[in-house]
Amino acid sequence: MWIKNAWYVAAWSEDVTSDAIFARTYLGEPVIMYRTGDGRVTALEDRCCHRHAPLSKGRIEGDDVRCMYHGLKFGPGGQCVEIPGGAKPRDVYRVRHFPVVEKQNLIWIWMGDESLADANDIIDYPYLDSDDWAYQGGYLPYEANYRLAIDNFLDFSHLPYVHENTIGANLSFAEERPVIEHTDYGVHVINKTDDCEPAPTFQKAFAAAGVPFDGKVDRWSISDIHFRGNFLLGDFGTAPVGEGGHEGDRKNARQFRHFSAMTPETENTSHYHFAQTRDFGIGVEGLNEAILKGVLNAFYEDKDIIEAQQRTIDMNRDAPMLPLEVDKALLYFRKTIDSMIAAEQSVAAAAE
Amino acid sequence: MWIKNAWYVAAWSEDVTSDAIFARTYLGEPVIMYRTGDGRVTALEDRCCHRHAPLSKGRIEGDDVRCMYHGLKFGPGGQCVEIPGGAKPRDVYRVRHFPVVEKQNLIWIWMGDESLADANDIIDYPYLDSDDWAYQGGYLPYEANYRLAIDNFLDFSHLPYVHENTIGANLSFAEERPVIEHTDYGVHVINKTDDCEPAPTFQKAFAAAGVPFDGKVDRWSISDIHFRGNFLLGDFGTAPVGEGGHEGDRKNARQFRHFSAMTPETENTSHYHFAQTRDFGIGVEGLNEAILKGVLNAFYEDKDIIEAQQRTIDMNRDAPMLPLEVDKALLYFRKTIDSMIAAEQSVAAAAE
Amino acid sequence: MWIKNAWYVAAWSEDVTSDAIFARTYLGEPVIMYRTGDGRVTALEDRCCHRHAPLSKGRIEGDDVRCMYHGLKFGPGGQCVEIPGGAKPRDVYRVRHFPVVEKQNLIWIWMGDESLADANDIIDYPYLDSDDWAYQGGYLPYEANYRLAIDNFLDFSHLPYVHENTIGANLSFAEERPVIEHTDYGVHVINKTDDCEPAPTFQKAFAAAGVPFDGKVDRWSISDIHFRGNFLLGDFGTAPVGEGGHEGDRKNARQFRHFSAMTPETENTSHYHFAQTRDFGIGVEGLNEAILKGVLNAFYEDKDIIEAQQRTIDMNRDAPMLPLEVDKALLYFRKTIDSMIAAEQSVAAAAE
Repeated sequence: MWIKNAWYVAAWSEDVTSDAIFARTYLGEPVIMYRTGDGRVTALEDRCCHRHAPLSKGRIEGDDVRCMYHGLKFGPGGQCVEIPGGAKPRDVYRVRHFPVVEKQNLIWIWMGDESLADANDIIDYPYLDSDDWAYQGGYLPYEANYRLAIDNFLDFSHLPYVHENTIGANLSFAEERPVIEHTDYGVHVINKTDDCEPAPTFQKAFAAAGVPFDGKVDRWSISDIHFRGNFLLGDFGTAPVGEGGHEGDRKNARQFRHFSAMTPETENTSHYHFAQTRDFGIGVEGLNEAILKGVLNAFYEDKDIIEAQQRTIDMNRDAPMLPLEVDKALLYFRKTIDSMIAAEQSVAAAAE
Repeated sequence: MWIKNAWYVAAWSEDVTSDAIFARTYLGEPVIMYRTGDGRVTALEDRCCHRHAPLSKGRIEGDDVRCMYHGLKFGPGGQCVEIPGGAKPRDVYRVRHFPVVEKQNLIWIWMGDESLADANDIIDYPYLDSDDWAYQGGYLPYEANYRLAIDNFLDFSHLPYVHENTIGANLSFAEERPVIEHTDYGVHVINKTDDCEPAPTFQKAFAAAGVPFDGKVDRWSISDIHFRGNFLLGDFGTAPVGEGGHEGDRKNARQFRHFSAMTPETENTSHYHFAQTRDFGIGVEGLNEAILKGVLNAFYEDKDIIEAQQRTIDMNRDAPMLPLEVDKALLYFRKTIDSMIAAEQSVAAAAE
Repeated sequence: MWIKNAWYVAAWSEDVTSDAIFARTYLGEPVIMYRTGDGRVTALEDRCCHRHAPLSKGRIEGDDVRCMYHGLKFGPGGQCVEIPGGAKPRDVYRVRHFPVVEKQNLIWIWMGDESLADANDIIDYPYLDSDDWAYQGGYLPYEANYRLAIDNFLDFSHLPYVHENTIGANLSFAEERPVIEHTDYGVHVINKTDDCEPAPTFQKAFAAAGVPFDGKVDRWSISDIHFRGNFLLGDFGTAPVGEGGHEGDRKNARQFRHFSAMTPETENTSHYHFAQTRDFGIGVEGLNEAILKGVLNAFYEDKDIIEAQQRTIDMNRDAPMLPLEVDKALLYFRKTIDSMIAAEQSVAAAAE
């Protein structure tokens, strides 16, 4: 169960080319993507309408893709444009076309009702495509339902445990309660600690960039979690004490802007795309890779515990969970997303 | 779902010996085969009637097979002939015996109502056992329902796509419509092209045998597809232009007689036996192996796309398929085999 | 389906330490075990009550275990003793605690109604923990339902077939009928042969210990099979002829006392613990290992045929089994254990 009418992250821009078919399953539907001659990405159902051979075994021919079982050729809109032997393709000969939008190095896909897809609804996140910010994007497949992974976004209390040896080490705000505000898109979470040591993993990155902090700092971690599309936008900053923290002018701050998106693949698997962009050490050789490696170390820890959690849940789906005070955001997420799914389904049912 | 009252290809003659038990599943039933002292093949249920240990873990003792769990011994007809400890086997102590016929290097098995099994119904295909024809038989396991593989027999329009780099290269009759005739056993399919180049893969075989064609040729590919038993008999020939093609005297022709049979193993797996026999280059060293290798190259291509098709179908069994004009034979096969299965089941139900 | 109110073998004593969490599934429930500071074993549900992360990914802290997802800490009784962030654990914050008893090198666990668990019900088997008896314990995972393995305990007619090259070679009492007596705990099975050769595998062990028999011997194999807990206690002896066999004073006998226990893991998998203790050759270097190796050779043969039997049964669960005279004990076991399970369930239903 998931929201269908949403823009989901499908891939990084560089994943999709005009030379090879890129195939993935989103929301239970097999999809192929490739670029046409004008560089635009097209996304089609990975299932030939004729005999259900996968188009991912097919061949790109200019702007079209040919099924390599019986040779039907489909245009980038999904319409069959050629049937070998000369038969004229009827209108019903088509594979489903999915709206896709490429923006700021991400490819977003819409798996729901096409008439509701509005590219303007896709967030603007310039940090992914700016000369002033640097990063290397990452991807991990998850053997877990997307909700378990979103829980992880919503809950920073896991940091000192899951990440005790990486990003959770000496994490002073683990003991503090975040401020959580409900918004129209999901939740806004503020964690901050004033007058503390820099986070060790962050300080390591600052040092590698030649801009370490000498003394105490103010730190903040502000996240916007969007329920429609399952993504998190993070503002993770460090600044010298006394400059106002995240509310200051940030001119001596070092900042990360984080992006994490969890797209359902099947009921029990997900696609995780993420980026840790930064505004310092731009152009420092090897720093993109080093920071990605550090993030991956921590994200493998999340993946390990969440996939184990999924396996335990699968052993007994009826066992009750006992919520803590810190789970308010999780519960709000579950309740909200369930309402959104129910609303979507009642609209779909009424339309039939 | 499959026809039960049919002779199906179970194995090549050489697969079954008197030294070792040969075990395979046919139509969902586990079966063992071995040869008795007179060289005859016996086929029994691979499940001891006592505690359901598989007889394939057992031991051949003369004409009998002993279950190596508790030692029950069964004769080649399935009757228990010895119970260790001296108890007299009662009539009910038996494993099911399946009719088998060995003919022209193939072992055929009957998994249905034994009273309907008539060995005379097995086709005569002398090319598989003749001094004038040579071949090396092949086998491939299929991770797909047998129907998807039969579709492939019935439809030559896939040749230039699935086999673009092997037998489909420069295939002039890919663009032509075959003549398809309904028969009492299934369909008769005629493809022919006059005054063309030899098929590259065929010419390669002719050359290896020292009998290549110099100029233009007439080519034909005539197939009989039998719905009861799921097999194809092919007459694939090449002759100099002007000698009447397949209707001529063929004295200067080079011919292949092909055999392909697809036996259901389970709902989603099948056994594929095949042979590409030829009437030229008999005795040329290495030619049997070279031709088998060429055929296998092409058949791995079929297997790859058909297994991918099966996986795509499994993702959504309700998605509709859209038939093309060229699918008439496929649709006729589906409709006919469904009727045959329904008729068989209504007879079985009436008998109960 | 299994008896829940029983002590089952969970592990060998040496498997469970205070340094690392030992995780296994019993009767379909995931469990962790570790030792507290006083050396006692504690067994808890391997599923944090909070978000169902497995505690087996957690950390032992003194006598407690901390879930390494969000940091909840549980005492050895299963009660949550700490929630990070300072919330006071309510009573409902607990994971299930399972009674465990360590006795004579074995750890026994009770997965049923805790109020019925009485440590006095655990058998006394001093051979597992005595200076006069030696052994090295073994463990094998089984891909089969526990009943198929218990069948094997109850039925020695399989020895000459499954074990024809190991413990079944020259097994004279294979042809004799055992005496089977029903008891309040299960069955008592007596096999004996007087005035025969020593069993080859046993004689090999006697020789390695420097105490082979020179002439004919009396042999016996007496087993107590306990239906509650699925274990077998075996008295396997060899003595010079004329000293009364198992009823004699045994002063010149060489004896094995065997222990085998089959604990259900899931419906189709089991945990097999076993020990072949002996009263001769105590302290002979390498003899423990040599005897374990010999036992394992034979037990791999059992495992192989029983797992094959399970797979054959899984292909068609409706096929009937035909019992033999020698299956009386098996049938009695099935009938008795089914009654015990039904009784247990009706009590549980009445209590709700």
